[in-house]
Amino acid sequence: MYMNTLLNHKTIRKYSNREVDNDTLNEILTAGTRASNTGNMQLYSIIATRSAEVKAKLAPAHFNQPMITNAPVVLTFCADVNRYNKWCALRNTDPGTDNFESLTTAIVDAVICAQNVCVAAEEKGLGICYLGTTTYNPHQIIEALNLPKGVLPVTTVTLGYPAEDPAMQLRLPLGAVVHSDTYKDYSDADINAYYSEEESDATNKKFVAENQKENLAQVFAEVRYTRAASEAFGKILMDTIRKQGFIK
Amino acid sequence: MYMNTLLNHKTIRKYSNREVDNDTLNEILTAGTRASNTGNMQLYSIIATRSAEVKAKLAPAHFNQPMITNAPVVLTFCADVNRYNKWCALRNTDPGTDNFESLTTAIVDAVICAQNVCVAAEEKGLGICYLGTTTYNPHQIIEALNLPKGVLPVTTVTLGYPAEDPAMQLRLPLGAVVHSDTYKDYSDADINAYYSEEESDATNKKFVAENQKENLAQVFAEVRYTRAASEAFGKILMDTIRKQGFIK
Repeated sequence: MYMNTLLNHKTIRKYSNREVDNDTLNEILTAGTRASNTGNMQLYSIIATRSAEVKAKLAPAHFNQPMITNAPVVLTFCADVNRYNKWCALRNTDPGTDNFESLTTAIVDAVICAQNVCVAAEEKGLGICYLGTTTYNPHQIIEALNLPKGVLPVTTVTLGYPAEDPAMQLRLPLGAVVHSDTYKDYSDADINAYYSEEESDATNKKFVAENQKENLAQVFAEVRYTRAASEAFGKILMDTIRKQGFIK
Repeated sequence: MYMNTLLNHKTIRKYSNREVDNDTLNEILTAGTRASNTGNMQLYSIIATRSAEVKAKLAPAHFNQPMITNAPVVLTFCADVNRYNKWCALRNTDPGTDNFESLTTAIVDAVICAQNVCVAAEEKGLGICYLGTTTYNPHQIIEALNLPKGVLPVTTVTLGYPAEDPAMQLRLPLGAVVHSDTYKDYSDADINAYYSEEESDATNKKFVAENQKENLAQVFAEVRYTRAASEAFGKILMDTIRKQGFIK
C-alpha cells in the first residue's frame, strides 16, 4: 500500500539494467503534474534525460556521482517562467515574472511536482535518488540542458529499478521537527536528546572515526557541508539566478 | 490505491467539523519526515497549529483566506537551520549555514517533506490546500509563530476532512512541461497548442468575461499575479531572508 511506500522510503543509488518504459515514465510524470501548484500556472519543467551523451555532459555538474550515468533516466526539475512568459507575450500582456517572488513560487511548485513523481516511481517499484548538487552548479546544468532565460534547475532525481537494498536511514524523532501551535526554541537539553540516537548509531560513529573528528556534527560541518563550499555555491547560485532573469 | 490518490488530487478549501486526531496527524507528519532530504540534516521544521488564537494571528498574513481559521490544522513548513546551528554550537563546530545555498537546500527539503505529508493526508481521507501566500508575508508569519533567526516559512498547508467535492482542475498536456533529453524551447505554435484546452475551458472563459479581459493570460498577469504585487512581495521576501540570517 502507498502508506508503506512513504514510510519505507530508501534512496536507491544503484540501478539494474532494466529500462524504464515510456508508459511507466509518462504515468509517474503525470502524477507529478497532478500535484498542487500556484494558481495552476505550472511554472516548472521536467527534463527527462535518457541519452548517454547528455548524461555525460550533466555528470560533471553533479561531481560525477555515478547515479547520473548509471540510472536509465535522469529527471531535472526546473523552475520555469519561460513558457508562461511566451504565452503572455503572445496574448499581449506583461507576465511580470522577472523577480525573486516568481522564482520562489516556481521553485516550490517544481519541488512539489518532483516529490509526487518520486512517490509514484517508488509505488511502481522504481528507486530514486535526489541530487542536491543541482543548486551547486546550476550554470553547468543550464549549459548541458540548453535551459533558456527564465529557467533555473532546482533539483534532480535519478530513476531506475533498484539493484541494491540499503538499510533505512535514521531520522530525528518527530518531536524534534514538529512544533505545536508556535515555534518552541530548543534548549541544550533538547538538542542533546534529539540528536542522541543519530550520534550513538554505529555507522555514524564510524564516520566520526574515519574522518578523525570528535563528533558527528563536525563531520557534517567540517567534511560534508563546509562553510567555504556553501558560500561559494551560494554565490554561483545567486549569480545564476540573476543571469536567468529573476533578479535585476 | 495510492496512484489514484496522486492522479485524482483536488485542493480542498472547505472542511467539516470533524477533528484530526493526534495519531492520524503524527502518522502523516512521520510520512513527511521519511522523505528524502539533503545529507539527512533535516533542515526544516513543521509548525502544526490548532489553536484558534494562533490561527487568528496567522490569518492576516494569508490575506484572511478562510481556510486558515476553518481548517482544524494549519501546517507551516519552514526552512530551518536553527536546530542544526544549535547542535553544531554544542559540538564545538561552525555550522556555516548563514548563506543562500544552505537556505535553498533547506527550502527544497521543506517542500519535499510537505508534499509527502499532503499525499499521506489525502490517502487518509483528509483534504489539503497549499497557501502560496506564505512567501508573500513571511515577516508576519515569523511574528505569529515566534520563528527565530535561521528559520524561514516556505509553504503552508491547511488540513481537514473535506466538506466539498470540487471538479478536477485542468493541467497543461504532459508534453508542455516535459522535455526529452534537453530543453526544447517553445514556438508560437507550441504555445497556442499547449494552452488551447485551458483557454477554451468554460470556467476560464467566465473568468475572462468577469474581469473584462481579452484572454486568460491577461487574467493571470493583470488580475491574479501582477508585476506590482510580485515585485513588492519579492522585496519583502528578500528582506526577510536577510533578516533571518541567510544573506549578509
